[in-house]
Amino acid sequence: MYELHFAVPMAGAVLCTFNTRHDAPMVSALLKHSGAKVFLVESSLLHVGRAALKRIADSESNAASIPVLVTISDDAGQDSGRAADYDYEGLIKSAPSAFDIRWPADELDPITLNYTSGTTSRPKGVVYNHRGAYLNTIGTVLAYDITPMPTYLWTVPMFHCNGWHLPWGVAMQGGTNVCLRHFTAAVIFDTIERHGVTHMGGAPTVLNMIVNAPAADRRPLPGTVRVMTGGAPPPPRVLAGMEELGFAVYHIYGLTETYGPATVCTWMPEWDALPGEERARLKARQGFQHIAMEEADVKDPVTMESVPRDGEAVGEVMFRGNTVMSRYYNDITATKESMAGGWLHTGDLAVRHPDGYIQLKDRAKDIIISGGENISSIEVESVIFSHPAVLEAAVVARPDDHWGETPCAFVKLKDGAIATDAEIIGFCRERLPHFMAPKTVVFEDLPKTSTGKTQKFVLREKARAMGSLTKIVGNNSKL
Amino acid sequence: MYELHFAVPMAGAVLCTFNTRHDAPMVSALLKHSGAKVFLVESSLLHVGRAALKRIADSESNAASIPVLVTISDDAGQDSGRAADYDYEGLIKSAPSAFDIRWPADELDPITLNYTSGTTSRPKGVVYNHRGAYLNTIGTVLAYDITPMPTYLWTVPMFHCNGWHLPWGVAMQGGTNVCLRHFTAAVIFDTIERHGVTHMGGAPTVLNMIVNAPAADRRPLPGTVRVMTGGAPPPPRVLAGMEELGFAVYHIYGLTETYGPATVCTWMPEWDALPGEERARLKARQGFQHIAMEEADVKDPVTMESVPRDGEAVGEVMFRGNTVMSRYYNDITATKESMAGGWLHTGDLAVRHPDGYIQLKDRAKDIIISGGENISSIEVESVIFSHPAVLEAAVVARPDDHWGETPCAFVKLKDGAIATDAEIIGFCRERLPHFMAPKTVVFEDLPKTSTGKTQKFVLREKARAMGSLTKIVGNNSKL
Repeated sequence: MYELHFAVPMAGAVLCTFNTRHDAPMVSALLKHSGAKVFLVESSLLHVGRAALKRIADSESNAASIPVLVTISDDAGQDSGRAADYDYEGLIKSAPSAFDIRWPADELDPITLNYTSGTTSRPKGVVYNHRGAYLNTIGTVLAYDITPMPTYLWTVPMFHCNGWHLPWGVAMQGGTNVCLRHFTAAVIFDTIERHGVTHMGGAPTVLNMIVNAPAADRRPLPGTVRVMTGGAPPPPRVLAGMEELGFAVYHIYGLTETYGPATVCTWMPEWDALPGEERARLKARQGFQHIAMEEADVKDPVTMESVPRDGEAVGEVMFRGNTVMSRYYNDITATKESMAGGWLHTGDLAVRHPDGYIQLKDRAKDIIISGGENISSIEVESVIFSHPAVLEAAVVARPDDHWGETPCAFVKLKDGAIATDAEIIGFCRERLPHFMAPKTVVFEDLPKTSTGKTQKFVLREKARAMGSLTKIVGNNSKL
Repeated sequence: MYELHFAVPMAGAVLCTFNTRHDAPMVSALLKHSGAKVFLVESSLLHVGRAALKRIADSESNAASIPVLVTISDDAGQDSGRAADYDYEGLIKSAPSAFDIRWPADELDPITLNYTSGTTSRPKGVVYNHRGAYLNTIGTVLAYDITPMPTYLWTVPMFHCNGWHLPWGVAMQGGTNVCLRHFTAAVIFDTIERHGVTHMGGAPTVLNMIVNAPAADRRPLPGTVRVMTGGAPPPPRVLAGMEELGFAVYHIYGLTETYGPATVCTWMPEWDALPGEERARLKARQGFQHIAMEEADVKDPVTMESVPRDGEAVGEVMFRGNTVMSRYYNDITATKESMAGGWLHTGDLAVRHPDGYIQLKDRAKDIIISGGENISSIEVESVIFSHPAVLEAAVVARPDDHWGETPCAFVKLKDGAIATDAEIIGFCRERLPHFMAPKTVVFEDLPKTSTGKTQKFVLREKARAMGSLTKIVGNNSKL
């Protein structure tokens, strides 16, 4: 996937990366929506890829619209492809070395396509262009202080906002990439020591895993390791814990629609002297736009006026500039809605402090962020609704020490119907990527407004009161 | 001048900065050529400014074409302005604070105008645009490794390629600017210590001054001080001397036409282990384009083919990309000539090494052609520089009836050092092919520009005035 971040654009094509956790129905939906011509699949995921292609073949009369499969073999692969498939390494070996780079005709031509949410019914594909990707790469490298010749440890998936643009950023600074197929805290500490890692990224859940690693799994850091975190507001406790271990944490914030990183909590040298808790509180703020984003602001979405810088008035975070997406692919309505008034509306609620720093107060309320990935509660609800025993369902976020949040379903069964929580969860897992399935199911009547709408804020409070599903007991993190 | 790098573009105007050493005739010529509307003059230079305005008034019938004078007072000023003048600080105090920034209508609109050469007859004004200035600022900050919150010591004048774009670059990284009106090696060491300077710039002559500072003038560095050098190829001996003092030297290269810095000699970590002399030799190369310049190449100016990467074939350095100037102001002919074939022709001759690094051999006009052989003045200079008695050296062509030209060296010795011309010539002959060794050595102070570059054209005139070394008498050519 690292190579393809260069090869695909240089071939004049658009790179569309999929979440490795997607199932075959989702993959086939995204292949269709994106109009993919070539489908490159790493061997360990070939069973999903083949099933997705079969779904397309079964529903398509025109064989030309089925993408060509190219298999990428790997030592850890379980399926090395069939004779009929194209083989990635074989294609490279047989390719002419004098191939001329196909430069984009226009710098606003698309370079990548990133699907944001896991809806098979209406996928939202965010289009990045060459200009924006170039600038966001530079903005991220600068915001994150990636000095020349870094050694970068990949824990942020490259399919997520193009790995925060660091496939390009690490290359730009002449760096070394350290890739892991799976990781634990012990593996991270080992890898840092073995390769002299200087930079890494990770959602707050990854930081939490590091902070809570048992002493036996830890290793002293070979030097300062800079960690860029984002994807969800990092809990101050986790930030403070990372600092104690010797990591330098850079807190960034952004959305798929902003090419990934868009703001950085710029650190003021005078804050070094503050107590750890205060430092963590300051660092948990989202900060300012980075150098490549024209403007980040907190606005009243109706009047489009900026909120006062008082740390109290809540508004919506909005962006404009070169590193705001071109559009949602093939979705003019959603594009227009999201860009009303010339600003990208994030749906994130925030305040602006007197020093100008932006701080998120609430995510768009229906979104659940689990392990850095967005989960649409509406989509999970619609699957639960489809269970024959279910009368009503509402899904909200339950706080979680490891994942940040997990989906928690409140379900009312039909009169006389019987279903267990395990049954509902299993039902969802058959129809959704596993991470989207609820981890908790509560059977009860749903609170309603007078007009019959479910009061989600009441359920959110209940879920919050339950506390974390995955508790951290002593030095062991139980998942 | 620092403030004006922001204020003038934000007022929707174009900033044109003048060399502080220009005299009244030159200043009046540039005011006229640029069509300046407002003329801001710092108090210590007010006598030049007034004389320049008087020249314009004497030759202009239309009073509207005389720029408005704004005086900038300073503690060191000798002239605080007259009642009739606008006063800079006074204007700021009386200005409305709610002034809206006048953004450029187009990113290719001009932001600054930089005059390159000191000819009153045909000034060459290089036009920079907003897009290019933004990108070159980022490119320079990255090439030079300007990390957040730097303390930058200004020895490079801000009127020179907009101070290598660092008025913007230092602000971008939240830095502190340390400005000096005049400096010596002692002042530089003092200032570094007092303010904790982290970054500075300087032509090789400034580095030479630092390296040759008497022990009494030196101070230990408070930490690594990163020095960006350029403007002329730095002699390896000077680079090695700086390293010994604890400076980290970044070697950049560019022209006014490339917004200043355009290439950087990217340092490979494995070179750290090489002997000092070898490291200095590698660092004296100009390297590669920085991240904001699309392409730097060495080409045959006739065929426009790239030279082979063999370290021997000489071609002309050419650039293309966002950080190549828009044009010469009001000079379509010069613009077309310099941009023939879509590439900026620098007039600098260079080779390309097998590892891709570009190395300058000479300015086209500085090349000495002796007996049909090209002699790189830079190569001869770097050998003379390595002689222990030598402080500075410049080599130019001396006309010769027999050879066409022969190398003529102008040398300044270190305080108290002694060397004869025969000794210098012998030293060179031991280290260079005989035809490359100077035939003439003149001991004297070298004429400099305000940015510390040796004024080779002055020396060339002197060498020309000497006449031929080998006279042709009758039919006998005496060698």
